Amino acid sequence: MTMTSPDAATGGHEAVALLERARALVDPELRSAVASLPDPIRRVARYHLGWEDEHGRPVHQGGGKVIRPALVLAATRALGADPLGAVRPAVAVELTHNFTLLHDDVIDEDPTRRHRPTAWAVFGVPDAIVTGDAMMSLAARLLAADPHPASAAAVTRLSDCVIELCAGQQNDCAFEDRAPDDVTLDEVLTMATAKTGALLGSSCALGALYANADGEAVAALDAFGREAGLAFQLIDDLIGIWGDPERTGKPAGADLASHKKSLPVVAALASGTEAAEELAELYRHPMDAAAVRRAASAVERAGGRDWAQNEAADRMARAVQELSRAVPDLSAAEELLALAEFVTRRTH
Amino acid sequence: MTMTSPDAATGGHEAVALLERARALVDPELRSAVASLPDPIRRVARYHLGWEDEHGRPVHQGGGKVIRPALVLAATRALGADPLGAVRPAVAVELTHNFTLLHDDVIDEDPTRRHRPTAWAVFGVPDAIVTGDAMMSLAARLLAADPHPASAAAVTRLSDCVIELCAGQQNDCAFEDRAPDDVTLDEVLTMATAKTGALLGSSCALGALYANADGEAVAALDAFGREAGLAFQLIDDLIGIWGDPERTGKPAGADLASHKKSLPVVAALASGTEAAEELAELYRHPMDAAAVRRAASAVERAGGRDWAQNEAADRMARAVQELSRAVPDLSAAEELLALAEFVTRRTH
Repeated sequence: MTMTSPDAATGGHEAVALLERARALVDPELRSAVASLPDPIRRVARYHLGWEDEHGRPVHQGGGKVIRPALVLAATRALGADPLGAVRPAVAVELTHNFTLLHDDVIDEDPTRRHRPTAWAVFGVPDAIVTGDAMMSLAARLLAADPHPASAAAVTRLSDCVIELCAGQQNDCAFEDRAPDDVTLDEVLTMATAKTGALLGSSCALGALYANADGEAVAALDAFGREAGLAFQLIDDLIGIWGDPERTGKPAGADLASHKKSLPVVAALASGTEAAEELAELYRHPMDAAAVRRAASAVERAGGRDWAQNEAADRMARAVQELSRAVPDLSAAEELLALAEFVTRRTH
Repeated sequence: MTMTSPDAATGGHEAVALLERARALVDPELRSAVASLPDPIRRVARYHLGWEDEHGRPVHQGGGKVIRPALVLAATRALGADPLGAVRPAVAVELTHNFTLLHDDVIDEDPTRRHRPTAWAVFGVPDAIVTGDAMMSLAARLLAADPHPASAAAVTRLSDCVIELCAGQQNDCAFEDRAPDDVTLDEVLTMATAKTGALLGSSCALGALYANADGEAVAALDAFGREAGLAFQLIDDLIGIWGDPERTGKPAGADLASHKKSLPVVAALASGTEAAEELAELYRHPMDAAAVRRAASAVERAGGRDWAQNEAADRMARAVQELSRAVPDLSAAEELLALAEFVTRRTH
């Protein structure tokens, strides 16, 4: 996947530097917000965020990649304001993201995340649920207590986003219970937009709100983040089938082995080809390693791999188009473009 | 338990009328808020609220008793403002209450609530978790999008309340895993205040905020609700041991059979009496009906029943004292007093 920006080749280094800067800005505020949580919940949050091991001892491996906070800060800068004024919404989206991870891991019964046991696996389901709830309320609290004029609009938008995230997660679970060829590509695209695009879009929109942008610019930034988020999900789904297990931490074909109805798979199933029938049949039974390889080949022969790659490129093009509505001179938005390209080119 | 108000005998009728009026005001707004949720989540919410059966057909049995919304409206009136202006926070606290019920039922693996299967038992754990999340965000959204000047303070307070509720629920679960005589009465009182008092206090505080009351009055109303909430929990715990199963929907002694470390039980265990030792021993093993009767008798002989009744009366007295700080002429607060008395005298 390539991007329309002429300096795409340098985007990777710039994005890494942006993420480092975002972490340096966000980390102290995030730690201080988490420190305000009551004790047993705080400990689960600190474990989940990768700051402590299960005994409460500090660890230095770090947590996630703070992509969403970096998007908030970059969006504020793209709209001509100082990112230092948008640290709070950056912290709020990181809390929101981690709340969804805590609950998703419970819901999906996932035993590992970022190469460590998940919070529910260590502390139990009750602690993981209430810690997620508390982190979500902490995000709303940070924004509501902010004297910034966009405070109320930010809470409203973030709350709408959480409701959409919940709907996406619900759909995802519901799809897993349906027959492989019963789920349509439109349904999966809507689900992926809700589950992944909504929070990336809201991150950009919050950054715009904190730059005191008008409604149209906020909507354009939201659309930029959503389209980039869908591109990200498409690439993530490709990695889930053909990715490098050394880098992803999960075996190649993991999504196929778990019968996941990811975007390339559903596109393949909807292709009306012989390979689609072969794939549907494979998805009706447990798969060993050989069956997983046959399934990956069937997705490719049915056109699922090409479709996902093209769709990701299209979505990125649309993202840039949306962005240019709010920032006609895209050189002012180079940080946003670098981040978007980074997440859609990532191999880990 | 009696109350300090001279017209306590008539409080029951007045409270029922207040609850009916609160329901009439809150129901349309609550239904319209829930209607804004995306579809599968909306259906789970409507089931949980008692509006629909598991097939989505309307039912007319009604949901909970809207005590918290009634407290919001009564607090607004007690501080001299029109309750009609406080319908939104009333809806928000009812959404918050129901979000906690949805998650608590998952966490406690409770199969029934209000004489029906719980939402997770009907729709599965994933749907119950995400519906709770969505209802909480809907509550924050309603308040944040409100042009009322207290909007931001209301979101902040409700978010703090949710964090406290989460801590209370976490403590409750953690206590269940500890030895019967290892949990102190102070710990259980703190837990009960967090789990029950916090939201009743916040309901009153939100009503005060929406009456544009000053910080001291808001704090006094919060303290009133917290103390009344603890009185309510003490009475609820007594009902859990000696209540009428016809009215409570659960067998007498249910809390003992499930080894619940309720307030009268922990007070009894902490009494240093022979009956306390007998109770601790009974709590170490599964109990049949005869053992449950012996345990109830031991709680009583150890002084747990009397303590809980006296403590509830004390808490109600303190509640009234707190209230009088904000409303010196208590006749202006007769609705709040009637509601507080109702919840602490209830036998169902």
